[in-house]
Amino acid sequence: MKILVIHGPNLNLLGTWESDKYGKKTLEDINNSLKMLTVEIGVKVVIKQSDHEGEIVDLIQNSKDYTALVINPAAYTHTSVAIRDAIAAVNIPAVEIHLSNIYEREEFRHKSLISPVAYGQISGFGPESYLLGLRAAISIANAKKRAS
Amino acid sequence: MKILVIHGPNLNLLGTWESDKYGKKTLEDINNSLKMLTVEIGVKVVIKQSDHEGEIVDLIQNSKDYTALVINPAAYTHTSVAIRDAIAAVNIPAVEIHLSNIYEREEFRHKSLISPVAYGQISGFGPESYLLGLRAAISIANAKKRAS
Amino acid sequence: MKILVIHGPNLNLLGTWESDKYGKKTLEDINNSLKMLTVEIGVKVVIKQSDHEGEIVDLIQNSKDYTALVINPAAYTHTSVAIRDAIAAVNIPAVEIHLSNIYEREEFRHKSLISPVAYGQISGFGPESYLLGLRAAISIANAKKRAS
Amino acid sequence: MKILVIHGPNLNLLGTWESDKYGKKTLEDINNSLKMLTVEIGVKVVIKQSDHEGEIVDLIQNSKDYTALVINPAAYTHTSVAIRDAIAAVNIPAVEIHLSNIYEREEFRHKSLISPVAYGQISGFGPESYLLGLRAAISIANAKKRAS
Amino acid sequence: MKILVIHGPNLNLLGTWESDKYGKKTLEDINNSLKMLTVEIGVKVVIKQSDHEGEIVDLIQNSKDYTALVINPAAYTHTSVAIRDAIAAVNIPAVEIHLSNIYEREEFRHKSLISPVAYGQISGFGPESYLLGLRAAISIANAKKRAS
Amino acid sequence: MKILVIHGPNLNLLGTWESDKYGKKTLEDINNSLKMLTVEIGVKVVIKQSDHEGEIVDLIQNSKDYTALVINPAAYTHTSVAIRDAIAAVNIPAVEIHLSNIYEREEFRHKSLISPVAYGQISGFGPESYLLGLRAAISIANAKKRAS
Amino acid sequence: MKILVIHGPNLNLLGTWESDKYGKKTLEDINNSLKMLTVEIGVKVVIKQSDHEGEIVDLIQNSKDYTALVINPAAYTHTSVAIRDAIAAVNIPAVEIHLSNIYEREEFRHKSLISPVAYGQISGFGPESYLLGLRAAISIANAKKRAS
Amino acid sequence: MKILVIHGPNLNLLGTWESDKYGKKTLEDINNSLKMLTVEIGVKVVIKQSDHEGEIVDLIQNSKDYTALVINPAAYTHTSVAIRDAIAAVNIPAVEIHLSNIYEREEFRHKSLISPVAYGQISGFGPESYLLGLRAAISIANAKKRAS
Amino acid sequence: MKILVIHGPNLNLLGTWESDKYGKKTLEDINNSLKMLTVEIGVKVVIKQSDHEGEIVDLIQNSKDYTALVINPAAYTHTSVAIRDAIAAVNIPAVEIHLSNIYEREEFRHKSLISPVAYGQISGFGPESYLLGLRAAISIANAKKRAS
Amino acid sequence: MKILVIHGPNLNLLGTWESDKYGKKTLEDINNSLKMLTVEIGVKVVIKQSDHEGEIVDLIQNSKDYTALVINPAAYTHTSVAIRDAIAAVNIPAVEIHLSNIYEREEFRHKSLISPVAYGQISGFGPESYLLGLRAAISIANAKKRAS
Amino acid sequence: MKILVIHGPNLNLLGTWESDKYGKKTLEDINNSLKMLTVEIGVKVVIKQSDHEGEIVDLIQNSKDYTALVINPAAYTHTSVAIRDAIAAVNIPAVEIHLSNIYEREEFRHKSLISPVAYGQISGFGPESYLLGLRAAISIANAKKRAS
Amino acid sequence: MKILVIHGPNLNLLGTWESDKYGKKTLEDINNSLKMLTVEIGVKVVIKQSDHEGEIVDLIQNSKDYTALVINPAAYTHTSVAIRDAIAAVNIPAVEIHLSNIYEREEFRHKSLISPVAYGQISGFGPESYLLGLRAAISIANAKKRAS
Repeated sequence: MKILVIHGPNLNLLGTWESDKYGKKTLEDINNSLKMLTVEIGVKVVIKQSDHEGEIVDLIQNSKDYTALVINPAAYTHTSVAIRDAIAAVNIPAVEIHLSNIYEREEFRHKSLISPVAYGQISGFGPESYLLGLRAAISIANAKKRAS
Repeated sequence: MKILVIHGPNLNLLGTWESDKYGKKTLEDINNSLKMLTVEIGVKVVIKQSDHEGEIVDLIQNSKDYTALVINPAAYTHTSVAIRDAIAAVNIPAVEIHLSNIYEREEFRHKSLISPVAYGQISGFGPESYLLGLRAAISIANAKKRAS
Repeated sequence: MKILVIHGPNLNLLGTWESDKYGKKTLEDINNSLKMLTVEIGVKVVIKQSDHEGEIVDLIQNSKDYTALVINPAAYTHTSVAIRDAIAAVNIPAVEIHLSNIYEREEFRHKSLISPVAYGQISGFGPESYLLGLRAAISIANAKKRAS
Repeated sequence: MKILVIHGPNLNLLGTWESDKYGKKTLEDINNSLKMLTVEIGVKVVIKQSDHEGEIVDLIQNSKDYTALVINPAAYTHTSVAIRDAIAAVNIPAVEIHLSNIYEREEFRHKSLISPVAYGQISGFGPESYLLGLRAAISIANAKKRAS
Repeated sequence: MKILVIHGPNLNLLGTWESDKYGKKTLEDINNSLKMLTVEIGVKVVIKQSDHEGEIVDLIQNSKDYTALVINPAAYTHTSVAIRDAIAAVNIPAVEIHLSNIYEREEFRHKSLISPVAYGQISGFGPESYLLGLRAAISIANAKKRAS
Repeated sequence: MKILVIHGPNLNLLGTWESDKYGKKTLEDINNSLKMLTVEIGVKVVIKQSDHEGEIVDLIQNSKDYTALVINPAAYTHTSVAIRDAIAAVNIPAVEIHLSNIYEREEFRHKSLISPVAYGQISGFGPESYLLGLRAAISIANAKKRAS
Repeated sequence: MKILVIHGPNLNLLGTWESDKYGKKTLEDINNSLKMLTVEIGVKVVIKQSDHEGEIVDLIQNSKDYTALVINPAAYTHTSVAIRDAIAAVNIPAVEIHLSNIYEREEFRHKSLISPVAYGQISGFGPESYLLGLRAAISIANAKKRAS
Repeated sequence: MKILVIHGPNLNLLGTWESDKYGKKTLEDINNSLKMLTVEIGVKVVIKQSDHEGEIVDLIQNSKDYTALVINPAAYTHTSVAIRDAIAAVNIPAVEIHLSNIYEREEFRHKSLISPVAYGQISGFGPESYLLGLRAAISIANAKKRAS
Repeated sequence: MKILVIHGPNLNLLGTWESDKYGKKTLEDINNSLKMLTVEIGVKVVIKQSDHEGEIVDLIQNSKDYTALVINPAAYTHTSVAIRDAIAAVNIPAVEIHLSNIYEREEFRHKSLISPVAYGQISGFGPESYLLGLRAAISIANAKKRAS
Repeated sequence: MKILVIHGPNLNLLGTWESDKYGKKTLEDINNSLKMLTVEIGVKVVIKQSDHEGEIVDLIQNSKDYTALVINPAAYTHTSVAIRDAIAAVNIPAVEIHLSNIYEREEFRHKSLISPVAYGQISGFGPESYLLGLRAAISIANAKKRAS
Repeated sequence: MKILVIHGPNLNLLGTWESDKYGKKTLEDINNSLKMLTVEIGVKVVIKQSDHEGEIVDLIQNSKDYTALVINPAAYTHTSVAIRDAIAAVNIPAVEIHLSNIYEREEFRHKSLISPVAYGQISGFGPESYLLGLRAAISIANAKKRAS
Repeated sequence: MKILVIHGPNLNLLGTWESDKYGKKTLEDINNSLKMLTVEIGVKVVIKQSDHEGEIVDLIQNSKDYTALVINPAAYTHTSVAIRDAIAAVNIPAVEIHLSNIYEREEFRHKSLISPVAYGQISGFGPESYLLGLRAAISIANAKKRAS
C-alpha cells in the first residue's frame, strides 16, 4: 500500500507564515509526523509540494501506482478545474485536506471545486488533518481490498 | 476524557434507508465501532440520537462535562441556527461529521450553518467518518491539555 | 389499504384563523370529509396533526405499514430538510397538499423542500385539496398493485 | 356544466416520447379516460391540443361559455406571459395540470408563470393528474353555484 | 407619412378585461381615437392586433413602407427576443407603448426585452399612451425629414 | 391649470455636454419650447432646475398648488428614495421624463426608483420627451376634472 | 392587561454565554427587571423560555387571553416560518425583541422571517430591549382600548 | 444630559401625508410628546428636521455636545453612506427610529445602511417609536455613566 | 441519408439586415451553398424557415424520417422550451447552429435553452456554420450506422 | 496648470475620526502637504470640501478652467450617480482618490460609481494617496499638452 | 497555410479516462486523424499539448507565424483569463473546440472565458470536433485571403 | 532600499498588443522609465515578467530581501488565489498596479482577488501607473523606517 501526499501552493512557507492562522509547525514537521505514522501502520508514503497548478496536474496523472491520494490543494481548491479533472480522470480515491476551517474564512474559500470529485474531506484540525487524512485513505484502501 | 456523540434526524434509519447512498451498516453497528475504538484508546463516550432540533439543542447545552462533541447534524446541518448558536454558546470543541460527501449532492446540502462554529469537519467516509471524528476530538483535547 | 394523513403546524387553528385566506372550515370539518370519502371508497385513514418538526419526522418514520402518505407540511414545506429526508427514507409514496395557492403568496412560499421527494403535488383547492390528495394516493396504490 | 381541457405543446407525442418520464399512455388514451369520467359524472368536456402559444391564447379567450378550464401548459408553463394574461383576463377558474413532478426536473421547470393566476395546481400523477384536475374543476364550479 | 400601429396579445379583450387595471375603453374606442388624431394631423395609420408572436414578427418584417411603428407588445414585451430582433432588423423607428405603469406591477413586468431596440417608451397613461406614441412617432419622422 | 416642470442634476449643462447622447439643444431651448406649447394650449408652466436632491424634495413638497408635475429626475432617478417619497406624499400626478432611452445605457440606469410612484413614463425622445410629458400631464388633469 | 413574554432557544444560557456579545446579565436578571417594571406599571406578565420551535408555536397558539406578546425568537428569527404563521394566526399584537444589534452580525442574521408579521421591532439595547418592548406592548394595548 | 433628535426627509409632511400608513399625528404633535417626556424625565432635547442629506451629515458632525442621538433617517436609511459615516465618525450612540414597520413595505426598504453603525433600532410603533427611542437613548447614557 | 435544415425567425431577412453583424449573404445564398455541398457529398437536404415557434415545433415533430437535424433557432434559442422539448422528444440528433459568436453579444444571448438537448453546437463562422453543421450531422449519422 | 482638489463628506473630521483606520493627520495637514508639493512642482491648486452631494456636483460643473480634478468622493463614491454624471459632463480628467484600501472594507464599499468615468484610481496609501493623485493629474496634463 | 492545434490539460489521458464521456479514441488517434485531413486538404499542422496554463499562454504568444489556431482549452476554458488575453493579444483567429457538449455538464462548465475572444466555437462532436475546427480555421483563412 | 517589480502574463507583448487600449510603449520602455526614476531617487529595482502563475508565486515567496513589491498581476488579478496567498504570506508591502482603468472594461475585470491583501492600488494611468507605484512603495518604506 502506497499513498501519495500532495501539498499545494505556499504550504512550503508553513510555520513562518501567518502562524496565528496555521500554527507554528513547519511543512517538514508535518512530513515527519506523516512518516512516523506510516511507519507505525506499515504503509509507504511519497510526499510532494508544488506552487504550480500544471505540476500538480502532472503529479496526479502519474499517481496510478498509488493506492490513494491525500491532497491539500490550498489556493487551487477554489480556482482549479484542471486539478479537479485530473482527480476525476485517474482511478484512485483522493482525500481532500485543509489545515484551517475554511468556513470561518473569506466567502470565496467556502466553495471547493475539488470536493465533488474527492472521496471525502477533512478540514480544520491543523497538521492533525493530514494524519486523519492518511488514516482515511488507508481505511478506503482496506475497504476496497475487502470488496475485491 | 469523555466524548459526546450526537446523531441527528433520520440517522436511526441507517442501513434500512437508501443503502446505496449511506451503506448497509445500521446505527447500532456504528455505535459498536465507536465503543470498540473508545475502549482501545481509553476514553469514555456517550451516544445520543434525536429527530428533534430542540432536543439536540438541549443535549448540547447540557454537554458541559464533556471534553469534546462529535456531531452529525444531518438535515439540521442546513437549516438550524439554533444548533449553531448552542455549539457557539457552550465552551467545548465540536467536530462536524457527515457520512456522505455532501458536495456531490443537492445544491442546498453544500452549505452548512454548523461549519463556521465547528472546530473542523469530516465528511464522505461513511461510518469511518465517526471514527476519524472521534480521533480528531481526542487530538484536540490532548492539544488543549498540553497547552494548559 | 391504509392511508396516513399528516397536518402540519398551525393547521389546528383552521377556521378560526385568517378565514379569508383559508376558508371557514375547521380541521375537524376536513377530517370528517376525509373520513366520509374513505368510507365511500373503502380504505382506512389515520389522521395526525403536529406543530413539531421532530414529531412529524417520527410520524413519517413510523408510517411503514401505510400504503401512502397525504401530507400538508404547512410552514415546514419551506424550511424542513428533516421532513424531506424522512419522506425519502421510508419507502411509501407521499402526496403533498396545500390549502391555498402558494404561488399567489410571499416569494419564500413558492419554493418547497418537500416537492422533489413527493410523488406529486396538489395545491389551491382549499379543503378539497385533501380529498383530491386522498384520491391521488389511492390511484398510486392501485397502480402499484397492478404493476406487482 | 361544460369543461374545456387544453393540452399544450408536444403533448400530442405522448406515449411515443420519453416513455420512461411520461409513461406509455398516448394522448388519445388520456382523452378517453377523461371522457369516461365526464360521462360518469355527467358533465360535458371539450378537448384541444396545440403547439402554438398564440392558438392557446385564442382558445382561452374563446372559453367564456365554459364553467372551468383544465390546462396542461407544458413548455409554455415557464415562458408564456401571454397565456398567463389570457387566463387572468377571462373570468373562469383554471386548474393547472402537469403529468410529471416538475420539481424533480431541471431548475427552469420549477418556476411556473401560470401558477399565480391559476385556481390551483396538480402535478406528478401522470394521466391521473387530468382526472384529478377534472374533479377539482367540477368541485370549484359546484362551490360557485352554491355560493350564488 | 404612414404609421403602423401593432396591438399585442389579449389587447382585443380591452374594456371587458380587468377594467380596474386597464380602464373601460375597448380596443375599438382606442382605434377610433387614433384615427381621429391622424385625420387631425394629416397622417395615415394602419392598425393590427395579434395574439401570435410569429405574426407580429411577420408584421414588423413587412413594415418597410411605413415611416414609423407604434407597438404595444403587451405580454411579449417580457418574453420575445424574436420581436426584438425583428424591430432591430427593419430600419424604421419603433415607439414602445404600455397602457399601465408596468413598474407598479409584478417584478417580471419591469424588464422589457423591446426597450433597448425601441426609439423611446411611453407607459402608464392608459389609451392616451397611444395618442402620445403617435405624436412621438410623427415627431421622430419630422426630425428625420429635416435632417435629410 | 398650472404645471410644475423640474429638471434634475446636470441638465443645466445640456447642449454643451455629451451632445452625441443628449443632442445640441440647451436647457433654455427646451424651456422655450415648453413655454410655446403652454401658450398654444393655454396652461401655465413654472420651470425649475437643481443639482441638489434636498432642493428637489423641497420643490415637490411645495407643489401643492399645481395640477401636475413633469419631472426629469436625471441621476436621482436611480438613487433617490427621498424624491420618491416626496412624490408619493404630495397628492398630484407626476410624469417621469427622460431625454435618452435609459434602457440602451448602463445596467444601473435601467432601474428607476421613481417609476412606481409616477403616473407614467416617457423616455428616449430627446427634448420632445418634455413636450409629450406636458401633453400627458394636461390629459391626466382633464380626465380628473371630467371625473369630478 | 396581561402580557406574554417568550424567550427563544439558548437564551437560558444568557450571562454564561459569549458575555462580550450579550452582556453578563442572566435570564433570571432580565425576568426580574421585567417583573419589577410590570409591578411599577400595573400589568401582569407571564414569562416562558423554550429551545423547541414546536413548543413556541404552541405557546403562541395558546396566547389568546393575553393583550400582547413580547417575543425574542433568537435563532428561530431567521428560520421559522411556523412561528411566523402562528403569530399571524392569533389575533394579538407581537413585539419582536433582540438583545444584540443583529445588523452588526453575520449576513444571515440580517433577515427576519418574523418582522413582517410583528407589530414592531426593538433590537440592540441588551436587556433594556425587553423593557422597551414591554412599554411598546402596553402602548399598543392602550391605543387599541382608546380606539374601541 | 442632552439628546439630539433628527427627523429625515419628508417627515415635515407627517399627518397630511399617507395618513393610513403613518397615522394622523403631525410632526409638531410628535415633537410635543417628546418634549413632555423629556420634562417628565428631566433631560434636554433639541429637535431638527431636514430634507437635505448634507445638512443631516452636518448636524451629526456638530452633535458632539450631546449624550445621544435619536434619528429617523427616513428615505436616507436606504441610500446614505454619508450619514452612516458621520454616525460612525462622531463618538456618541445613535438610536435608529422608524414610524412604520419597514419589513412590511417594499423590498428596498428592508435594508438599512444605518443599522450596522447604530446602537440599536426601534421600528413600527408610530409616534411611540420616538418616545421609546428617547428612553433607549437615556438608558444607554445612564449605563455609560455607571460604567465610567 | 436525408437532413432537415431549419432556419429560425428573422433569418429570411439575412443580407438586408445588420449586414455588419451577419454578413451580406442572403438566406438564398446560404441555401444554395448547402445544396451544393449536399450534391457533392451525396445526401439529401430539405430546408425550412419560419418566424413561428409553434411551426418550428411542428416541423421537428414531423422530422422522424430524417437522419439528422441542423437548426439555427435564432431568437428562439434563448426563449423556447417548446422547441427544446420537441428536439428531446423526437429521436434524431440535432446540430445547433449560430451565424454570429453569441458570446460576444448581449448577456441574454449567452444562454441557450437548446444546447443541453442538442448533439453539439457550432457558432460564429457566419454562413460557413451551416456547412460545418451539415458535415457534423453526416458524421454523426455515419457513426450511428457503423455502431448498428 | 491649475488643479482642483475636492474632498467629499466627513473628510473634514480626519484625524479626529477613527484614527486607526484613517491615520492621525488632519485635513489641514493633508492640504498643507498638497500645497508644498504644488509649490515644489510649480502648479496651482484649489482645495474644497463639502458634505453636500449637490455642492460637489456644482463644484465639478464649475471646474472648466482647471487642467485636472483630484477627487476623494468618500461616501458618495458608492451612491452618487449625480457626481458621476457631472464628471462625465465636464471635459477635464479626474483622478479618483481613497485614503484607505476600500477592498479591505465592507462589501458595499468595493463598488465605485465614479471609477468608470474617472481617468484612474489611487487607493490605500493614506494622505500619500493625494500626493500621488496630484502627480498623476500633472502627468496626464503633460501628456495631453505633448499630444496637442 | 499553417495551423496550430493546442490541446489543454488532461487531454493526454484521452481514451483511458472516463471513456463513457469522451469516447475510446486516444489523443494520438485524434492527432492522426488531424494529420490525415491536413494532408488531404494540403495545409500544415503543428500539434501541442500542455497541462500548464503558462505554457499555453507562451504557445499562443509564439503562434504569430500561423494562419489560425484551433484550441481545446479543456479545464482552462472556465478559469483562465491569461489564455483569453493571449488570444486577444495575438492577431490570428482562434477556433474554440470541445469534445463533449459542455451544456449537458456541470453548471460551471457552461461559461467559457475564451468564447468572447474566439472567432467561433464547436462543441459536442467528440474527435470530429477537431476535424470540423480545422475546416473552420481553413475557411476563415481563405475568406481573409480573398478579402485582402 | 530594494524594490521588486513583477509584470504578470502577456505584459511582454505590450506595445505590439491592442495598442489602442494599452498604448504604444513596450515593456522595455516601461522598464527603462522605472530604472531612470530609481536612479533619480536612489533606490534599487529588480524587474521580472512571467506568464506562469506558479512562477509568480515563487518570485513573491523569494522576495523577502526586498523593501516592497510593485506588482501588475494582469490576468491573474481576477483568478489567482495562489498569488493572493503568497502576498499575504510574505511580510512586505505590495502595491497593485494596472495600466488600464479596469472599471471601464468587462464585468469580470472589476473584481480583484489581490486588492484585499495589497497595501494599495493604482490603476488607469498607463505606464505612469508603474512610476506612481514605485513612488508609493518608497513612501510606504520610508514611513515604516520612521515608525521603527
